[in-house]
Amino acid sequence: MNLATEKNQPLLDIRTLSEKMFADLAAASKNSVGITREAYGQSEQQAIELVKSYAEKYDLETGFDAAANLVITLPGDDPDKPFIACGSHLDSVPQGGNYDGAAGVVAGIVSLARMRSEGFTPRQNIKVMAFRGEESAWFGKPYIGSSALLGRLSQADLEALHRNGHERLSDALTKAGAAIDRIAKGEPLIDPKSLAGYLELHIEQGPVMIARDMPTAIVTGIRGAIRHRKMTCLGKAGHSGAVPRWLRQDALFATAELISTLDEHWRVLLERGLDIVVTSGIVETNSTVHSMTRIPDEVSFSIEIRSQSVDALEAFYHLMQTECSKIEKSRKVKFQFDRRLFTAPAKMNEAWIERLKEISRKLNLPPETLPSGAGHDAAVFANAGIPTAMIFIRNDKGSHNPDETMSIDDFLKGTEILYHALKEPL
Amino acid sequence: MNLATEKNQPLLDIRTLSEKMFADLAAASKNSVGITREAYGQSEQQAIELVKSYAEKYDLETGFDAAANLVITLPGDDPDKPFIACGSHLDSVPQGGNYDGAAGVVAGIVSLARMRSEGFTPRQNIKVMAFRGEESAWFGKPYIGSSALLGRLSQADLEALHRNGHERLSDALTKAGAAIDRIAKGEPLIDPKSLAGYLELHIEQGPVMIARDMPTAIVTGIRGAIRHRKMTCLGKAGHSGAVPRWLRQDALFATAELISTLDEHWRVLLERGLDIVVTSGIVETNSTVHSMTRIPDEVSFSIEIRSQSVDALEAFYHLMQTECSKIEKSRKVKFQFDRRLFTAPAKMNEAWIERLKEISRKLNLPPETLPSGAGHDAAVFANAGIPTAMIFIRNDKGSHNPDETMSIDDFLKGTEILYHALKEPL
Repeated sequence: MNLATEKNQPLLDIRTLSEKMFADLAAASKNSVGITREAYGQSEQQAIELVKSYAEKYDLETGFDAAANLVITLPGDDPDKPFIACGSHLDSVPQGGNYDGAAGVVAGIVSLARMRSEGFTPRQNIKVMAFRGEESAWFGKPYIGSSALLGRLSQADLEALHRNGHERLSDALTKAGAAIDRIAKGEPLIDPKSLAGYLELHIEQGPVMIARDMPTAIVTGIRGAIRHRKMTCLGKAGHSGAVPRWLRQDALFATAELISTLDEHWRVLLERGLDIVVTSGIVETNSTVHSMTRIPDEVSFSIEIRSQSVDALEAFYHLMQTECSKIEKSRKVKFQFDRRLFTAPAKMNEAWIERLKEISRKLNLPPETLPSGAGHDAAVFANAGIPTAMIFIRNDKGSHNPDETMSIDDFLKGTEILYHALKEPL
Repeated sequence: MNLATEKNQPLLDIRTLSEKMFADLAAASKNSVGITREAYGQSEQQAIELVKSYAEKYDLETGFDAAANLVITLPGDDPDKPFIACGSHLDSVPQGGNYDGAAGVVAGIVSLARMRSEGFTPRQNIKVMAFRGEESAWFGKPYIGSSALLGRLSQADLEALHRNGHERLSDALTKAGAAIDRIAKGEPLIDPKSLAGYLELHIEQGPVMIARDMPTAIVTGIRGAIRHRKMTCLGKAGHSGAVPRWLRQDALFATAELISTLDEHWRVLLERGLDIVVTSGIVETNSTVHSMTRIPDEVSFSIEIRSQSVDALEAFYHLMQTECSKIEKSRKVKFQFDRRLFTAPAKMNEAWIERLKEISRKLNLPPETLPSGAGHDAAVFANAGIPTAMIFIRNDKGSHNPDETMSIDDFLKGTEILYHALKEPL
């Protein structure tokens, strides 16, 4: 169906188009388990070709930016006016789902195809950016395509090895056709001022919208994080039967107290309206010496604090340090911290948030906001000073797994918001 | 020095004798690291020969019981009267210390040699029992020698393999000369009624006496235990950034809450005077899937509750079950329990405790009591209905390691208590 030759057909059936694009994408990237679209690999390339051919069918301009990301354009009346972009990424984690990333690209193409089908010509250009390499699963580094575009890859990033241990990111970028010399210099490959805004539609990666029965939501910000991969609590070993409570230096009871105390602080701060998420994903006694009858002298654990607010991150981190000191005194143990890892939060644009809420209201969709716990290409745009916003689509069973499930109804509702936002930008 | 031929010499120098026996024992069982006297092995046999030759030097009768334990006798006026026994074990853990076990045997021999040197003849026989195989490090099973003697080894115990994986306990006992057929039948090899009491001097295996500045102490009982080698808390995995607190089923936060709550119960029950010790020696998230940014769906951990009182054990266990149920409800997790392991506590004889306190007072030693967290041969005697008591000697740096340190001064103080108790039994 080529709209250029079917001008007299009824308006575009975007439900069927969306379903077909998702089905074709899934068929092209099906693995033994789930969906795999490898960053800068053959399966990502196939997805790019597929999406590109759809865009061309609907008479949209296609091309690649200097970072080798696919760019689809609906030309506007004034091509010199700062353009509006939407998009997301086309790669996936290994054995992941079909919607994480791809939903935002499909939504953009469907919106532009619809405008074409309606004979609508925008004032400024509208572009769909389909990024490569957003998932950190392949080269350790997330948001590669968007970071390359905005001059945000470090030398260390470019030297990162693929998970197969063979290929360097710089070689992968070169092979894909990216301007590696400019990227290596940290040069932005587009002028951030040439963008009037960046909108990203993405599935929610948590269970909040399912729990709150919201098909769509507007994102307030993307959480940053303070992390320690490995904290260690050191106490003193002893015979479990022979050392009474008052003489113990139990590293495990101390760690349990720290985690329980942080949980209680977290609960209280949530009540006060702060955005905070606290996780300890790993905990281990020392397996070479631990036993059921030995008071543990060593427990190692990871800690991650996420928030949209740098102040909240730092405040909670300070709280943790204070609790560690208290427990060190009361339990005669010692907490050791490894290197503190910091990722800055990204704030979504207030005016865009209001606009998206307003559109949602008009469409009888919830004008509700939500922070994004996971990272997105949108964070790179926001931190480059580009007015940025995100639309979340309800999604069951989380992401990064073959079971992620987005209903096409919910997708179309979110796409409707995007369509109106692109058509009537700020 | 043979006292039989040196009747006119000054009374026995028990300090020098004790030091020499300990030094000879250490020299015979020195390993690359610490002291090793292998249960039913050559190094334990050497220690037995050494101790036996000392006993013979001091004109004491020596022999072996039907379980192949060394027995040293100072004959009394009335050999038909129930005898008084003291003793401990001669084996050690691999790379352990010189005093755990041996101290009780040396104290017994020194006491009997002293009586000989003083020309003292007791009413009933007094015996020193030097047990084999008390440490569970060799065949998994503790108190083998005393259990064999009192008919307390099960078929499963006898089939237990040596830690080297080759020799069965039944074969080791046979080789040592024990009456394996009778032992296998569970037949007591001595009539418990032929014993008027069993006294065991042993180093403390915890730090309490060091902390409380007590050279000696009287043991009130030997703690029993309820244990789970592996409890598992099951929750639900999720993206650490994307799942808010109210939707989490975090197995690690749940486990931390359980342990912190048990610690608080423990603290309160101690204030009420209950004897309780709680330890979780092992804790682990599932290392095949855990990561810093993944809410843990599985945490496994060990739990051990020890007490001298069965009621306290059961009450605390019940408390733990209740807390697990509460946390299951509030955090939507599930606690799984593996097989519950139960070891009965052993109560020391009240009359003997009073007698030992009285002797301590007369000797200007603290008439203080202490529970034993670790197990001892004395538990087997107590649970066979034999009036049993224990004297603890202060010991630095715990036991089961090469650094255990007992001062000879403290040892002589404890031996003085034993000497008087054996001389003037109940």
